[in-house]
Amino acid sequence: MIGLVAARPAHEEATEAIGRELGAFLESRSRKAAAYGAQFEALWEEAGACILGGKLLRPRLLIALFDVLAADRRVSASHPSVVRIAAAVELLHYSFLLHDDVIDGDLTRRHRPNLIGALLQKTGADAAQDPSAPSQDDALHWARTGGILMGDLMLTAALQAFAREQLPPQMRLTLLDLLDRTITESVAGELLDVGLSDGVIPAELHTVLSMSRLKTATYTFELPMRAAAVLAGAPPGLESAIGEAGRHLGVAFQLQDDLLSTFGAPESHGKDPFSDLREGKETAIIAFARTTPAWPDIAPHFEDFAAGEGEGHMLRTLLTDCGAEEYARSLMEQQMRAGIDALANREDLVPAAVVRFCIRLASSLEGRRA
Amino acid sequence: MIGLVAARPAHEEATEAIGRELGAFLESRSRKAAAYGAQFEALWEEAGACILGGKLLRPRLLIALFDVLAADRRVSASHPSVVRIAAAVELLHYSFLLHDDVIDGDLTRRHRPNLIGALLQKTGADAAQDPSAPSQDDALHWARTGGILMGDLMLTAALQAFAREQLPPQMRLTLLDLLDRTITESVAGELLDVGLSDGVIPAELHTVLSMSRLKTATYTFELPMRAAAVLAGAPPGLESAIGEAGRHLGVAFQLQDDLLSTFGAPESHGKDPFSDLREGKETAIIAFARTTPAWPDIAPHFEDFAAGEGEGHMLRTLLTDCGAEEYARSLMEQQMRAGIDALANREDLVPAAVVRFCIRLASSLEGRRA
Repeated sequence: MIGLVAARPAHEEATEAIGRELGAFLESRSRKAAAYGAQFEALWEEAGACILGGKLLRPRLLIALFDVLAADRRVSASHPSVVRIAAAVELLHYSFLLHDDVIDGDLTRRHRPNLIGALLQKTGADAAQDPSAPSQDDALHWARTGGILMGDLMLTAALQAFAREQLPPQMRLTLLDLLDRTITESVAGELLDVGLSDGVIPAELHTVLSMSRLKTATYTFELPMRAAAVLAGAPPGLESAIGEAGRHLGVAFQLQDDLLSTFGAPESHGKDPFSDLREGKETAIIAFARTTPAWPDIAPHFEDFAAGEGEGHMLRTLLTDCGAEEYARSLMEQQMRAGIDALANREDLVPAAVVRFCIRLASSLEGRRA
Repeated sequence: MIGLVAARPAHEEATEAIGRELGAFLESRSRKAAAYGAQFEALWEEAGACILGGKLLRPRLLIALFDVLAADRRVSASHPSVVRIAAAVELLHYSFLLHDDVIDGDLTRRHRPNLIGALLQKTGADAAQDPSAPSQDDALHWARTGGILMGDLMLTAALQAFAREQLPPQMRLTLLDLLDRTITESVAGELLDVGLSDGVIPAELHTVLSMSRLKTATYTFELPMRAAAVLAGAPPGLESAIGEAGRHLGVAFQLQDDLLSTFGAPESHGKDPFSDLREGKETAIIAFARTTPAWPDIAPHFEDFAAGEGEGHMLRTLLTDCGAEEYARSLMEQQMRAGIDALANREDLVPAAVVRFCIRLASSLEGRRA
């Protein structure tokens, strides 16, 4: 996803600034953690390694849009608060990933052990040299506990960063409101997602679309874009138009993600092939397929998906043939269009540079392979 | 634990004020939650019922000590920030309880279903009327997910309350620092606790004592007492002496809790009888017993505790006979003494009314039965 949010030189500069900010935060936390025992220190170190390997999509989006707005509004572009708030958005993302992984029972992410997997490996390796070692069940329990607790610490760190930033009081409160709404919506979306998978909530298409918007679009696009607007001192109307664009682009991003996970080549997107299908994930693709006459033929493959290559390819073909792939693609196009229109139709409020930024963002989204 | 922190009239007034604050918060959240689906609304309602049934020990302690300090320092006692910060401390407590219950796999607290147990019952009841109902495994997964996510929302709410309170900037930052240290220590303590139970961390007496201090004493006593000092505008020396007293009293509180759970009458403390023993919890009592020559006789009963009444009583007798009960009782006395001394020995800094408050607090702690 390199190049998603900005031209290369600005992109590299922002990536470095975010990396420095996150690195300094993690180093300070690891150092302080040592006072509370070797295990707590190790937990911070493992978590740090996971965070620094991230793509930084959200904080880069925040900085790139802030730069466009700052140039237009003649605000100074070298605003240290911007990098700190951007880094906090990445910590929030990592907190969500961790609790998501605990809830889903996942031990890997992007072909590598996630924090839980890394803690499990570590305990296992220690255990190999020690006859009084914990059982496999205890080691897994310990690793998942680490995931829950580090998620709590990352959530805390994100909130603390927003709370402590030295900004005009009204700007700080507006950012705290935005963060609060974002967390509420993301949690509500995660609850819908799990409720759909566990069969507690009926899998209807509108519920699945609402889940995608709440769980992913809000914190991945609306939060960084709106925070950029607030930090650049944009008037409320502009901030709100940017937020609306972010929600649409965020839904498009999630649909693209669903399409890649179901129909894409795993060697490029880096996910476990067929992972969405194996987990029985209720994506828009599946929810649409449920509404078609082909569902009775698809359902047995989906409900007892055995994860074999052959069955994966067959299920893909069935989903394409019933129109679900086409549906998701056209819905994605429609959301990108709506995102651009939210800005392009408000010439009175929205600077042309922001519209151009949004068009570039949408087209890089369309072209992404991972 | 009625009467633990203040004389009756002030106690009742504070309890009502905290109840009103929490009630208003929960009502506003439940109302907003409806926009995100019936399940999210139901989650808030279940959580609200659990919170409002709490003993409010921590917020009452904060308000009672603030009142003593305010009277001494001639600060106005009707400070709306105090009730709001006190209520936020209760939300933090509930967040910790929830994640603790998820980690321990507990479905009840004080003889009643906790949030996870309530969600499980609810899904089960819905399922009874619906043939396509989720399996028992899915219902449990859904209920635990609710526990993780509501814990995240409560943690967020506590941090937001501290972040948004309109206080002089330095006072707000001091409170945010205090909250940050508290969360770090509580998480480090929980990690030690789980590491001890899972056999990842060796069960040594000093580790168990350090766990009790970090996991419980910091947020149960040091946080509310120190926050009261900050809000009353106490100078740093006084705040720090009060914090030290809080840490000692908090360790004494945890030791008393361990004694009640192991040797107390369950009908008065309301806990599952022998729950600490059944969970294989590494308390100071067990950690001391490990250091005695009697351990080889105790170990088989502790490690494979079958939870029967008879075995429970036998294990209790063995723990008393090896001196572990006496050890925990004298350590508790010593911590209470140290708590009082942290204040009584600093006449230059600490008002006599605060010393008296601390003595009353210690003696109500000693007398508690639940």
